[in-house]
Amino acid sequence: MAKSIEFWFDFVSPYAYIATQSIEQLAAKYDRTVAWKPMLLGAVFKSTGSSPLTMRPPVMADYFKHDFIRSAHFAGLPFVLPEPFPIATQNTARVCLWLQDIEPGRTGDFVRQVTRAYFTGPVALNDPAWLAQQISAMGLDGAAAEAACDDPHYKEALKAQCERAIAKGIFGAPWIIADEEAFWGNDRLPQLEKWLSQNGV
Amino acid sequence: MAKSIEFWFDFVSPYAYIATQSIEQLAAKYDRTVAWKPMLLGAVFKSTGSSPLTMRPPVMADYFKHDFIRSAHFAGLPFVLPEPFPIATQNTARVCLWLQDIEPGRTGDFVRQVTRAYFTGPVALNDPAWLAQQISAMGLDGAAAEAACDDPHYKEALKAQCERAIAKGIFGAPWIIADEEAFWGNDRLPQLEKWLSQNGV
Repeated sequence: MAKSIEFWFDFVSPYAYIATQSIEQLAAKYDRTVAWKPMLLGAVFKSTGSSPLTMRPPVMADYFKHDFIRSAHFAGLPFVLPEPFPIATQNTARVCLWLQDIEPGRTGDFVRQVTRAYFTGPVALNDPAWLAQQISAMGLDGAAAEAACDDPHYKEALKAQCERAIAKGIFGAPWIIADEEAFWGNDRLPQLEKWLSQNGV
Repeated sequence: MAKSIEFWFDFVSPYAYIATQSIEQLAAKYDRTVAWKPMLLGAVFKSTGSSPLTMRPPVMADYFKHDFIRSAHFAGLPFVLPEPFPIATQNTARVCLWLQDIEPGRTGDFVRQVTRAYFTGPVALNDPAWLAQQISAMGLDGAAAEAACDDPHYKEALKAQCERAIAKGIFGAPWIIADEEAFWGNDRLPQLEKWLSQNGV
C-alpha cells in the first residue's frame, strides 16, 4: 500500500486552493497517496496569534491579494478573490470529513471542485444547501451531506482535527507532511517534490 | 543600457542570502542588471508591526530555522544559522552604500561574499574592522570602508533608503521590483523569472 502524505488545509485558503489542484498528481508521481486533512485556520491562528493575510495592514493585504492571483496564474489556474473574504468554512470541512467516511476515494474530487468553485465564484461555499448540491452533482447523497453540517459527530470530529493540527505545530495552510517532514505553503511544493524523490515509498 | 531590477534586502535575512547568490545571473539571463538596495528590516518591520521570524512563537521559529537550512540546500548553498541571530546590520549596509559610490560594479561581489560568510560563519558581520577586511580582500580601501560606518553621510543615506523602502510598501526581504512589479521572498524567484521572460528589456 502506498504511503500517504498529509495535506492540511482550510477551504478558505487561496494558497491551499492552488496546491489542492495538483497535489494528488504530484504524490502519485512518487507512488504516494494524499490524506486530506480539512481544518479551520481560525482555530490554528489562535495558537500563534496569526491573522488572515487580507486582514493585515493594508500594504501587506494589498500585496497578498495581488500575489494570490499571480501565484494561481503561475500554476495555470484561474483566480477571483471571493467577496466577502475570508469566511468561516466549518460546514465545508464537516462535509469533507463525512465524505471521507462514506466515499474516501472521492475526497480529492470534492476538494478540488469546491475550492476551484469558491476561487472563481461567487458561490455560497459554506452554505449547507450549496454543499448538498456539490455532493449530489458527484452522484452522492446530498441530503446526508447537508445533515453532516449539523451532526454533533462531525462537529466533534472537526474540533478534534483542529486540535491535532495545533498539537502538530501547524500554523498555516497548506501544510504538507511527508514522513514527518513539514512543508508550509504552496511555494514549498518544489521542496516537497525533492523530498519525495529522495525518500522512497 | 540594460534595465535594472531592484533587489531590496537586509544582510541579516536568510532568504535574502539565498537569493543574493543567484539574482545577478538570473537578471543577466534576461539582459537586466541588479540595483542592490540594502535596508534595515528593523525599520521596515516597524511600519507593519512585523517581527523577525526567529522571534515569533516557538512553533513558528522552529519551523523557520529548519526551512532556512532546507531552502538553502534546495538552492545548492551551505547554511549555518548564526549565533546570535538576528543582529543589527547598519554598518554592513553603510559599507554597501559606500561601495556603490566608489565601485558600484563590485557591489554584487561584496553582497554575495559577506552574506555567504555570515550564513556559514561564525563571522563578525557588522563589525567595522571585519568589514574593512572584507573590502581590503577585494583589493579596495578597507580603511575608507570602516570610516563609512560612522560617516554621517552614510548614516543619513541608509536612513533615507529605509524610508524609501517603507514608502514603496516593502515589508520583508528579499523584495524584488521589476518594472514596478513587486516580488517578496526567495521563493518568488520562479515568478520573477516568468515576469522577466515575458517583459522585454
